[in-house]
Amino acid sequence: MANEVLEKGRLAKRASYKMPSLRTEDKNVALERIAKQLLEDEGEILQANQVDLEAGRKNGLSEAVLDRIMLNSDRIKAMVEGIRQVIELQDPIGDVLETITKENGLYIEKRRVPIGVIGMIYEARPNVTIDAATLALKTGNAIILRGSSSAKSSNIALVKSIHTALENSRVPVNAVQLIEDTSRETAKALFQLNEYLDVLIPRGGKNLIQTVVREASVPVIETGAGNCHIYIDESAKPSMVEEVVLNAKLQRPSVCNAVESLLIHENWFHNFGRQLLDKLAQHQVTIHGDEQVKAAYSDAVLATEEDWATEYLSLDLSVKLVNNMEEAIEHINTYGTNHSEAIITENEKNANTFLQNVDAAAVYHNASTRFTDGFEFGYGAEIGISTQKLHARGPMGLPALTSSKFFIKGTGHVRQ
Amino acid sequence: MANEVLEKGRLAKRASYKMPSLRTEDKNVALERIAKQLLEDEGEILQANQVDLEAGRKNGLSEAVLDRIMLNSDRIKAMVEGIRQVIELQDPIGDVLETITKENGLYIEKRRVPIGVIGMIYEARPNVTIDAATLALKTGNAIILRGSSSAKSSNIALVKSIHTALENSRVPVNAVQLIEDTSRETAKALFQLNEYLDVLIPRGGKNLIQTVVREASVPVIETGAGNCHIYIDESAKPSMVEEVVLNAKLQRPSVCNAVESLLIHENWFHNFGRQLLDKLAQHQVTIHGDEQVKAAYSDAVLATEEDWATEYLSLDLSVKLVNNMEEAIEHINTYGTNHSEAIITENEKNANTFLQNVDAAAVYHNASTRFTDGFEFGYGAEIGISTQKLHARGPMGLPALTSSKFFIKGTGHVRQ
Repeated sequence: MANEVLEKGRLAKRASYKMPSLRTEDKNVALERIAKQLLEDEGEILQANQVDLEAGRKNGLSEAVLDRIMLNSDRIKAMVEGIRQVIELQDPIGDVLETITKENGLYIEKRRVPIGVIGMIYEARPNVTIDAATLALKTGNAIILRGSSSAKSSNIALVKSIHTALENSRVPVNAVQLIEDTSRETAKALFQLNEYLDVLIPRGGKNLIQTVVREASVPVIETGAGNCHIYIDESAKPSMVEEVVLNAKLQRPSVCNAVESLLIHENWFHNFGRQLLDKLAQHQVTIHGDEQVKAAYSDAVLATEEDWATEYLSLDLSVKLVNNMEEAIEHINTYGTNHSEAIITENEKNANTFLQNVDAAAVYHNASTRFTDGFEFGYGAEIGISTQKLHARGPMGLPALTSSKFFIKGTGHVRQ
Repeated sequence: MANEVLEKGRLAKRASYKMPSLRTEDKNVALERIAKQLLEDEGEILQANQVDLEAGRKNGLSEAVLDRIMLNSDRIKAMVEGIRQVIELQDPIGDVLETITKENGLYIEKRRVPIGVIGMIYEARPNVTIDAATLALKTGNAIILRGSSSAKSSNIALVKSIHTALENSRVPVNAVQLIEDTSRETAKALFQLNEYLDVLIPRGGKNLIQTVVREASVPVIETGAGNCHIYIDESAKPSMVEEVVLNAKLQRPSVCNAVESLLIHENWFHNFGRQLLDKLAQHQVTIHGDEQVKAAYSDAVLATEEDWATEYLSLDLSVKLVNNMEEAIEHINTYGTNHSEAIITENEKNANTFLQNVDAAAVYHNASTRFTDGFEFGYGAEIGISTQKLHARGPMGLPALTSSKFFIKGTGHVRQ
């Protein structure tokens, strides 16, 4: 029922007002309590998880999805390990971002503060419940969690442990709210919860993200989809191309920063194309080529218009020849998802033009797209990878869960 | 027609790809050309403005609205002066925000870049056309302008001058687009223009802003509404209270950072309340008081629930007594619009608690709320005042019109 959303929204908002003044130490103590409680409640959590798994089997969920839902002792230990990593991270709250002293003596300080109430709407994986809650608490935010029906029992058990842990801490118990009703109605209510929600972050597949972007009136941070390209320029070194392309496609094909499309300068292709495509085929990669590629390499499947816009997340790769770099840039700006884009070239000038003119969160010269990741960038933990341009762009560390506020001190100052 | 929006969106997006690499000098030259062109085209602009004014009179627009639409020689000079101020501002594009060198030698640089395409939807005032366009160009953004029907001819003339000026510059002419069809249909099309628009900023009344927030699927920056409070604590100095409150209410009652509501500690009110209300009454301020205020001061009008939530923008002021500061904070967090909130007190501890726990873009201790303003903060120009927490909060200077991008340089780096 939408009433659950309203009531829990109200409670989270009230809790959030107490949280900007929490000390880092208090937040860390609460996080450590959550870690210990999860270990203590392991039995109950796994039992609840069994309920989800059995329901999932009955409903015919695929093995891949069941695996995402599944918890075991090791996975709970991994959650606990994750919490302890968050405890180690520096607390950004209170950082002074700017100071202004006006001629009349008025003192203005811009400080980092919590956002307030964060909404997180996500699919299957129950570990997101713990990840999201702990990152929110570390940054002094309240959070409203709305998981999927397929992990409902697990999420209820996990949030019960969080609440038990918070009862003996200085962090308000109401700072973490789980929407237990996983009907479409509660998702819709969350989209319109402008009164209580400061931001909504969707985590999951393209459909979920697009639905939230389209329907939510609360501010949204768009994460995720990565139709990433590598452009192979005329002067690219064949050995570097092979290493980078194989890494970007094969190291973990199912993730958003894996490469999905190659754009190859026709002169380079003429000399080294077959060798590269052979190598990819040896690794079971299916090539979806344009007409020229198909003509030169008969094992390729002929690409359709749809292929250029597809994030395969599998051992598929689209390949298109271009006459020059400008054509590659235009193709990427047309079909890309503003995530991660790379050029391989020995020509510095071309590299700089490409990096400037390609519109993406992360642009690479002579490196694999796989580095776009909070841990790889040294942020320690990641809420997701933003592909929008407002507020946060690229891997989002703790600062992405903060806002700012102007603190102004006077001695009776008035405006002239 | 929505087709106009789509086509101009496409043109703006294409132009935007060329703009991140514009040099500051090129942008400033283009801005100076616009300034000169406006002076040159003054006759045509004023003629077009007459068409709007005549239509407005025929349609029965109020004198206040007609004044907002009206241009004259002085107002065009003021626009030109505004452009020259923007030329003087430091260009934030290209600033390095963060550098990371990984152990493997991969070099990551986070740089400030333009947002891309900014949409601006606004009412009446044709000077917004020039303000918004010049701030967008200075930050390397393309802009789509959608003004109101009441200033249509003026806006067409102004944008014609901009286009003439840009033709002889390095800034693409298509970087500035005006939606000439001012029907509801084009506004709606703009709300859903996710393919081409990176952000939409509404400027105008509460209704316009709320419609955009509710209906747009593109990211929005919410600006404006200010139901600002001053809380007068028990220990507040009466002379300071009088000076600050009169300034906040009277210096310019029609703007968003003027005070609309006083919350007064009952002990303070008992000693000094009548004196303050008398002073306000002398300045023609109508007091909307709660029952206690009304009982003590019979000239007051009894406040309704609606008064607490009203941004009067006039010589009206709601006044409520509170038992303690916590009650004041709770009232503000319930009825405020997260704009500017002040406490007057000699108690430092209370001041700090108030500033921490009140949820607003700018919080003041012993100063007038009237300082929340881009010029007062030294930002030189202002797109508006953000009352949301994502991306920008409070007065928005040039950096609010920028995003960031990760530039990554390797020598064939791959992820392990």
